[in-house]
Amino acid sequence: MIGVVATLKVQDGKQSEFEAIFADLTKQVRANEPGNLAYQLTKSRTDPTVYKVLELYKDEAALKAHGGSDYFKAAGAKMGPCMGGRPEIEYLDGV
Amino acid sequence: MIGVVATLKVQDGKQSEFEAIFADLTKQVRANEPGNLAYQLTKSRTDPTVYKVLELYKDEAALKAHGGSDYFKAAGAKMGPCMGGRPEIEYLDGV
Repeated sequence: MIGVVATLKVQDGKQSEFEAIFADLTKQVRANEPGNLAYQLTKSRTDPTVYKVLELYKDEAALKAHGGSDYFKAAGAKMGPCMGGRPEIEYLDGV
Repeated sequence: MIGVVATLKVQDGKQSEFEAIFADLTKQVRANEPGNLAYQLTKSRTDPTVYKVLELYKDEAALKAHGGSDYFKAAGAKMGPCMGGRPEIEYLDGV
């Protein structure tokens, strides 16, 4: 099991656009990735421009399948103009 | 939906004891909390004394049921002697 916490900083005013793109991505993840066990977009309660994605994968292969998918790459490109900084991705090992 | 990222700092050498207590807690959560949607202990890849719990709850009532349970309180008391600092708990709103 692998956990991921992805912290995404969005430009103020771009939240709705970002959330719509992310909703499409989430649908694709759930439809195509049996090795993805959780994929949930959340937002900070203290900073309206900060989102965190809580993710769980069965194993390293499942994580690679996610990052290597065409829809993930396409979503990343679409989100680009909404972002207010580089994403911070923390990888964690399940216990 | 509510997300939680709980960062737990453990004393070096106490990892096994901590993980055993946490495994019992996880079993109780899964057996007793229909409103808990994910509860996964993970460990840092860079600091062997840092753990993160990735948690998802259906709603605020489910989060309260978790924190108010006798087994959660008992686990907290058991973990106390293993800990190397105060836990940092971040609450996030599902999108």
